[in-house]
Amino acid sequence: MTKIKTGILGATGMVGQRFIQLLHNHPWFELNELVASPDNAGKTYAEAVYNKWIVEGSVPENVANMTLIDSEKASDSDIYFSALPHESARLLEEKLASEGKGVLSNVAVNRMKSDVPLMVPEVNPEHAELINIQRKNRGIDGFIVTNPNCSTIPVTIVVKALEQFNPEQVLVTTMQAVSGAGYPGVPSLDMLDNIVPFIPTEEEKIQTESLKVLGSFSDKGIENAKLAVSASCNRCAVRDGHLESISIKFSEQTSAEKVIDALKNFKAEPQKLSLPTAPQPAIIVMEQQNRPQPVRDRLNGNGMAITVGRVRECNVLDIKLMVLGHNTIRGAAGASVLNAELLHKKGFF
Amino acid sequence: MTKIKTGILGATGMVGQRFIQLLHNHPWFELNELVASPDNAGKTYAEAVYNKWIVEGSVPENVANMTLIDSEKASDSDIYFSALPHESARLLEEKLASEGKGVLSNVAVNRMKSDVPLMVPEVNPEHAELINIQRKNRGIDGFIVTNPNCSTIPVTIVVKALEQFNPEQVLVTTMQAVSGAGYPGVPSLDMLDNIVPFIPTEEEKIQTESLKVLGSFSDKGIENAKLAVSASCNRCAVRDGHLESISIKFSEQTSAEKVIDALKNFKAEPQKLSLPTAPQPAIIVMEQQNRPQPVRDRLNGNGMAITVGRVRECNVLDIKLMVLGHNTIRGAAGASVLNAELLHKKGFF
Amino acid sequence: MTKIKTGILGATGMVGQRFIQLLHNHPWFELNELVASPDNAGKTYAEAVYNKWIVEGSVPENVANMTLIDSEKASDSDIYFSALPHESARLLEEKLASEGKGVLSNVAVNRMKSDVPLMVPEVNPEHAELINIQRKNRGIDGFIVTNPNCSTIPVTIVVKALEQFNPEQVLVTTMQAVSGAGYPGVPSLDMLDNIVPFIPTEEEKIQTESLKVLGSFSDKGIENAKLAVSASCNRCAVRDGHLESISIKFSEQTSAEKVIDALKNFKAEPQKLSLPTAPQPAIIVMEQQNRPQPVRDRLNGNGMAITVGRVRECNVLDIKLMVLGHNTIRGAAGASVLNAELLHKKGFF
Amino acid sequence: MTKIKTGILGATGMVGQRFIQLLHNHPWFELNELVASPDNAGKTYAEAVYNKWIVEGSVPENVANMTLIDSEKASDSDIYFSALPHESARLLEEKLASEGKGVLSNVAVNRMKSDVPLMVPEVNPEHAELINIQRKNRGIDGFIVTNPNCSTIPVTIVVKALEQFNPEQVLVTTMQAVSGAGYPGVPSLDMLDNIVPFIPTEEEKIQTESLKVLGSFSDKGIENAKLAVSASCNRCAVRDGHLESISIKFSEQTSAEKVIDALKNFKAEPQKLSLPTAPQPAIIVMEQQNRPQPVRDRLNGNGMAITVGRVRECNVLDIKLMVLGHNTIRGAAGASVLNAELLHKKGFF
Repeated sequence: MTKIKTGILGATGMVGQRFIQLLHNHPWFELNELVASPDNAGKTYAEAVYNKWIVEGSVPENVANMTLIDSEKASDSDIYFSALPHESARLLEEKLASEGKGVLSNVAVNRMKSDVPLMVPEVNPEHAELINIQRKNRGIDGFIVTNPNCSTIPVTIVVKALEQFNPEQVLVTTMQAVSGAGYPGVPSLDMLDNIVPFIPTEEEKIQTESLKVLGSFSDKGIENAKLAVSASCNRCAVRDGHLESISIKFSEQTSAEKVIDALKNFKAEPQKLSLPTAPQPAIIVMEQQNRPQPVRDRLNGNGMAITVGRVRECNVLDIKLMVLGHNTIRGAAGASVLNAELLHKKGFF
Repeated sequence: MTKIKTGILGATGMVGQRFIQLLHNHPWFELNELVASPDNAGKTYAEAVYNKWIVEGSVPENVANMTLIDSEKASDSDIYFSALPHESARLLEEKLASEGKGVLSNVAVNRMKSDVPLMVPEVNPEHAELINIQRKNRGIDGFIVTNPNCSTIPVTIVVKALEQFNPEQVLVTTMQAVSGAGYPGVPSLDMLDNIVPFIPTEEEKIQTESLKVLGSFSDKGIENAKLAVSASCNRCAVRDGHLESISIKFSEQTSAEKVIDALKNFKAEPQKLSLPTAPQPAIIVMEQQNRPQPVRDRLNGNGMAITVGRVRECNVLDIKLMVLGHNTIRGAAGASVLNAELLHKKGFF
Repeated sequence: MTKIKTGILGATGMVGQRFIQLLHNHPWFELNELVASPDNAGKTYAEAVYNKWIVEGSVPENVANMTLIDSEKASDSDIYFSALPHESARLLEEKLASEGKGVLSNVAVNRMKSDVPLMVPEVNPEHAELINIQRKNRGIDGFIVTNPNCSTIPVTIVVKALEQFNPEQVLVTTMQAVSGAGYPGVPSLDMLDNIVPFIPTEEEKIQTESLKVLGSFSDKGIENAKLAVSASCNRCAVRDGHLESISIKFSEQTSAEKVIDALKNFKAEPQKLSLPTAPQPAIIVMEQQNRPQPVRDRLNGNGMAITVGRVRECNVLDIKLMVLGHNTIRGAAGASVLNAELLHKKGFF
Repeated sequence: MTKIKTGILGATGMVGQRFIQLLHNHPWFELNELVASPDNAGKTYAEAVYNKWIVEGSVPENVANMTLIDSEKASDSDIYFSALPHESARLLEEKLASEGKGVLSNVAVNRMKSDVPLMVPEVNPEHAELINIQRKNRGIDGFIVTNPNCSTIPVTIVVKALEQFNPEQVLVTTMQAVSGAGYPGVPSLDMLDNIVPFIPTEEEKIQTESLKVLGSFSDKGIENAKLAVSASCNRCAVRDGHLESISIKFSEQTSAEKVIDALKNFKAEPQKLSLPTAPQPAIIVMEQQNRPQPVRDRLNGNGMAITVGRVRECNVLDIKLMVLGHNTIRGAAGASVLNAELLHKKGFF
């Protein structure tokens, strides 16, 4: 089987490095183009990330000597994963889609556009059909598909798994890792012996993106889910892994036991299709009363699983629980890769 | 003025050290007896905390050479502050009260007894009258008065300050400092690059103690507040200062602006009475969108103020905000000292 | 090939967990017995480490259901890896050796005995011959072989690699990870925003063990190396990986370039024999001026490589450099396993 | 007494904030001008450091409303404390000195000039006489006096206190706090679970500045001390306080006891003159074997004392010990203020 030619937009940053880790050995996709900012174009990947390679392990050998190219020259791949800084993403993503390329974007800029799917394969695989509307709308052969913000993804997967109980209200307080702000990102003087109770635009993203992800698709597009979501976001002294304290109100009666069962038995499209990056299972439910913990549980399912613990009744809403997801794998690069795998399996490219 | 003779039960532990700091120079109270465990009795205070003095600065000079005494010998003071380990507290506190002493306890064991006041002077100063019932019940001249758990106190002060809007539901997720577990307490392997989403009995304490504190007093005793409180407690890599993400539902209509005004204008008994340890104001409201932060704000009001920030509307309940309180000052030793000051001013000893 | 039956003494602690990780899938050794303290005997391994599994990933599936046995029952394996607490190690290790077993010990208690090899396979593989003397001395068929303390191993490997320049003095300041103290180990109140400039007995171990490891073997036993070693040991807020600042005086003239070349070209016995756990190369020399760093480099060579950086001239001694080694892999469990591999290859069992 | 009019150059940065703390209530000096970068000029101090005030407590009330001025307008003070970024310092410091002002600089740019004193009042108060040479050389009435780098100061004070034993070689490994890099400074991804074994230009500063500070003054200027100093510098996860592991070789015979006595009995000019900022004593010697520790000891002597511990013999040089100094107080702003106090007492302004 010939592999699909793949490019990464923004290959040297924190999320770009995760794309490298997930794709350098991928069974379906082949790294073909690494797009970087003009000052890095022309360098090898190893040179460009010299002293800036933050993730575990070393630069994969088959990537180290690839030469970085300028965004203008990106043209020779079938699909592109985008981790561009916000401001440069929009034009380039649209240009590539108009040239027939598939764009899988981790960037916020296109997420809320009405003809752009905002997808989590475990939650709304049927939103892929929005690509047809997008193509017709824009008269293009390619497409742009996005994944939500890192802290939104665990919320949507948990709510989806509990769909049978009809969730109405979701209140979440996050404790987020510093890698979410990239490198250099959060100053150490803000993190040693400290917590910062604010992450710009993060709460708004959780509150709006989750409604679209959990929304329903028809040929008129996406209709937002009827759900109230409230988020309070904090930055904590953790390298990787967003921990979230979630309370949910359901219109159906339920119990902690029923919720645990539903979470344990959750089976979704990527698992059924055995997509290469899909964790098996998608949700891990821990029984220990002091879990999940970032340092111990973030790499569950190779960083793609959502780990849930402390499911119990809530005095105010109905059920409360703790959720952990790896923010730059499950919540960023891995989310885009899983979207790509789903779309390929469904024949969109 | 002759100062009131004062003893500390459990003087060498984390909270005991805070008692030392707050009392060694107190205008009304004079350190007279330091009670320690049998293996420390007979040592000087400086010897006993050699290498275990964890709080800022050094052992005060006028305390360093005081000799620690065994609990059986405690008898020569008018009042006792208690920071004993849970299991040893009950008998000793009862014994001292029966001998005519005033006991101001930070320990959990007596908090929920129906004839024991559970007091936060800014919230329920009128509960002091329960002492009369306690004395009659038990046929004693002394008394036991307790303060709530460290993470409960900020919740109750905020809810009290917003009483006019009639709070009905309170949902809180805490991010708590390691000093709350004492020394040695939380292992560093649990805190470096990590968060632990569980603190034994902590959630139950917030959920039950706050109802008693916010309850109403009559000659029949305390009637719990009609309020639903749900807590989710986490241990974070912070030395001191519990940060809490709180959402509240009111039966009266309100807005972020009104809530901010009410918090800013909150005046309570300890402030009106100018008690020595009372912070002025009791609640500090910060406008910066990334505050309060433990390392920057925990010592506000000498560690006795509650600092609030990020007051905003909540999509699920009505209002959400962030609250910070110093857990071993405002939340423990300082809480007991402020109780003592109030009771002294009111003539209970 | 039939695998060698293998037991672990002290299987549930921090180093015991590393033994599990290194041995559960080993090409030559087969996990046969897991020995634990009496209170854990009878439990499955998964039960015993429930909430105490600190290392990355999960308990390996083929180990989770193994039943822990009491030390008295250990008898059915060919070799035993020992990570026992100091006080229980001596008798058990001697008993097993007298019963014909090979004991590979990470424990300090037997290290400095004159007939016990203290081995680092890259440094002194010829010390294995001391086993013959030990067997004759003690009239036993088994043996006890030890590896040095975690912070000593990197020192000895670097000094050995520079043997050609005749090292005379070694001055080392360590910055050591908390995992070296086990779990619960170092309190978080000692590590958040702090460094502790003392680790009991650690400096003595570096100063004495390194002389034995670098000593010469003859049929009279080990003669210590003629080398002055001075150590200053500190505990820092790092989970894994001991970083050491080392200055060395040589009697031969040298330069930073020559030292770098010698380190890069260092080839030792485990590498030549391609032992399964041997890192290739044993020493990694980094050119970046801000490396090695614990979080980025400790897993080099699967945690078995020594990473060196910042090789430069020293104004006081001759050369200074930074060395990093993973303390519970290269410095503990992995050290014992590599010893076992060498001894097996040499036919000692 | 009329206070001396005082300006701060670079008032908003980390060291600038420490100048504010030390000077807002100073008995001799009065804050008169706060000089900031052009984008902050015109703002009040409180506005400019809104969200950037990193040090303990709040902006002092009498400073909060002072208006920041541009460097060009600085002219109305008698003396100026300089914490400017390196590149802007040189011209401005020279200009002010030529206008008759006294400049007390914490900046590196002028430190090694042959007619500029590099002073630590406990070590080389006689170097103040170099001001006369500087004035003659440059034909100015003002002066520039500098203090060394934060990590150099503790080294020089300890070596000075041991002068009687004739120190010949000093080997130091530092473990430095992140505040030394200012704000935002060191990224949290470099500090969580990590150590960075490199700080640009830091080792060179210790190695060269200490020789000048410890040098001798004659009318020909400063002659460097005959001393070999070698430094290895590391950045650790500590907010404030540089901890240094130091080994020293003396030409006189000595012992740990003698060294401890000499350190305890060290009396220097600032202590004899009772300068307002001088710590009493300058050096604190701790007996506990696990001290000094940054979080517990950095504020000794209001952050101006040097704390020493673990004095013991060294197998390679003669004596080794641990030294702690607060890097932004004793090592920066406090160092400049103490220089100013000494010079004022000696009549230089």
